[in-house]
Amino acid sequence: MRTRVYLDWNATTPLRPEARAAILAAYDLTGNPSSVHAEGREARRLVEEARATLAAAVGAQPRNVVFTSAGTEANALALSPGLRGRSGGQVERLLVSAVEHVSVLAGGRFPADKIGLIQVTRSGVVDLDHLKAQLKDGPPALVSIMAANNETGALQPVAEAATIVHESGGLLHVDAIQALGKVPFDINLVGADLATFSAHKIGGPKGVGALVMSEGIGGLEPALRGGGQELNRRAGTENVAGIAGFGAAVKAALQALPEDAKRMTNLRDHLENGLRGIAGATIFADGVARLPNTVLFTAPGLKAETAVIGFDLEGIAVSSGSACSSGKVQPSHVLSAMGYDPAVAQGAVRLSLGWSTEPEHINRALEAWRKLGNTLLKG
Amino acid sequence: MRTRVYLDWNATTPLRPEARAAILAAYDLTGNPSSVHAEGREARRLVEEARATLAAAVGAQPRNVVFTSAGTEANALALSPGLRGRSGGQVERLLVSAVEHVSVLAGGRFPADKIGLIQVTRSGVVDLDHLKAQLKDGPPALVSIMAANNETGALQPVAEAATIVHESGGLLHVDAIQALGKVPFDINLVGADLATFSAHKIGGPKGVGALVMSEGIGGLEPALRGGGQELNRRAGTENVAGIAGFGAAVKAALQALPEDAKRMTNLRDHLENGLRGIAGATIFADGVARLPNTVLFTAPGLKAETAVIGFDLEGIAVSSGSACSSGKVQPSHVLSAMGYDPAVAQGAVRLSLGWSTEPEHINRALEAWRKLGNTLLKG
Repeated sequence: MRTRVYLDWNATTPLRPEARAAILAAYDLTGNPSSVHAEGREARRLVEEARATLAAAVGAQPRNVVFTSAGTEANALALSPGLRGRSGGQVERLLVSAVEHVSVLAGGRFPADKIGLIQVTRSGVVDLDHLKAQLKDGPPALVSIMAANNETGALQPVAEAATIVHESGGLLHVDAIQALGKVPFDINLVGADLATFSAHKIGGPKGVGALVMSEGIGGLEPALRGGGQELNRRAGTENVAGIAGFGAAVKAALQALPEDAKRMTNLRDHLENGLRGIAGATIFADGVARLPNTVLFTAPGLKAETAVIGFDLEGIAVSSGSACSSGKVQPSHVLSAMGYDPAVAQGAVRLSLGWSTEPEHINRALEAWRKLGNTLLKG
Repeated sequence: MRTRVYLDWNATTPLRPEARAAILAAYDLTGNPSSVHAEGREARRLVEEARATLAAAVGAQPRNVVFTSAGTEANALALSPGLRGRSGGQVERLLVSAVEHVSVLAGGRFPADKIGLIQVTRSGVVDLDHLKAQLKDGPPALVSIMAANNETGALQPVAEAATIVHESGGLLHVDAIQALGKVPFDINLVGADLATFSAHKIGGPKGVGALVMSEGIGGLEPALRGGGQELNRRAGTENVAGIAGFGAAVKAALQALPEDAKRMTNLRDHLENGLRGIAGATIFADGVARLPNTVLFTAPGLKAETAVIGFDLEGIAVSSGSACSSGKVQPSHVLSAMGYDPAVAQGAVRLSLGWSTEPEHINRALEAWRKLGNTLLKG
């Protein structure tokens, strides 16, 4: 049997060796970071080292980093109706792009009647004119736009959006979960007031995420209350080993970024050229700037569910978009928002690459697609 | 230098070897449990095995187990205003005992004016007459009483409370975080409608907890929304390795329970007898049934903060009650609820034992206390 080929890195990445080592070292410490004794202080030190690493990596102050249990919790925490900017104005509504992750579309703690959608273009890029129009009327808004889409890989104009949002007196939250480690990301260069991250998308452990705020953002309402952890912004004993692994993964991912991005871009281009050469394949968000590792494609009559299973039987792990819907293949809300009809939205297959992807893996995927396409799309 | 003595097991326990092995094995798998390919299914299998283990350990159905990021999140999820019992009646208010963990006292998603307190006796045991009186007037309540107190170790009359609560048409939530693995706990024997657990109190990893419901409890409102994980009750990619470690810890802890409980009881009695022999020490909740591993004591004029630091300098990790207040030593709300005045509540020191505690550790603690007591309490 041939070795498995893993091309679902946007769903989750393998644990980086650096993260694994940091996690194991953390498990050798027993203390609770809130304890005042030596064991507690050692655990605290690991948490604060990871906090400083993440802060430095994205241009923030360590005190403005809040560790959470995952990207979903970080997004839920970020979407807090009480948020205030440096000028002191409080946001009174939420605008989210139509291609956000489901955990952002859920709207955090904003009531449903205070949540609006920002349209995207046919290429899956946020329509800044629509954003401007939405901001023009109504009170200051918290706007949530992801740095890169998890399904298409399309990069979003977050820096331009920040200018527009700030001119209107609003705040910008950037879900940078898919961007971190794949493209450079700095909250100051973007102008993001809040940004969210997830460890397991960059080779850290599952079960850790973070909310990062720029200096002077106030009014964040904790979602978990009880103990005073994370400067009273997130109660609960810290996942010390997970946080240490997150820090180590951030360091390793950012160090490897320039080279990884080049490698992945080459491999992705190879993959896309191959797909284009096979009858009928369409690549989504083609022609706009995208993550170096993500290809979402379809072909007329393709059923994503069947295709994913077909690839799996050929030894290749791919996905039908987001993995966050509990094993169910549902029509992609991302493709719907881009204006594709449901039949197309149900037929998209995502291949996402990572640091250990080899040219051979791409060849295996293309070979499998040739075979599957012939079978699945016949008649 | 003498080896460190760790007597703060109620704050957090060392990782059990079985949990460590399960975590490492899980990290060798890459998949996201929500992915349909083989890698995803392997990760799913680990999560479901742990779910079945925890369910069996506490007498629940696996489908009624919701994994969370910690005990705090499990408690926040449990305290859901929409809860309905098997008869269909919805709870309309929350009653919590005055000695609950701060994450329960925070009241979950109940508004402040719908939360009432149940008094405890001078021994730190819930006053069932006060519970009855509180339930008599007013609509059906969700009642939250912990199985064992984290500071005093006092076991609570949760089975008796369940009968009283059910007669009034209410539901009972039992925070069993400190009880699990230290005393037998089964939701059916107790009559608990909801129960919460934390991995790192039984030798599992930090960053994992669970809410367990009895069959037929409905109306739980998710606190984290987005993906369909945990049967739509808790969005976010599962902490696969953490959950696998939790499952392994549950198995190991329950297997070791009868012997560990006997050992710890003997050691605790040795510790208490020693303390009683030293002038002035008072043990809280003395004379009521307690966890086999927990001793909370004070002496006239003792300052807990100074004592904890003093023990630490003697190489012994102890605590001043709960570790959940971010390194700050605050007067214990538990002792205040028991009717002690603030000076006493600020002077309590907790020693909590675990499976690797040796008689020598107890002797070291007693020796340190003799020395410290002489210094700290002089004059």
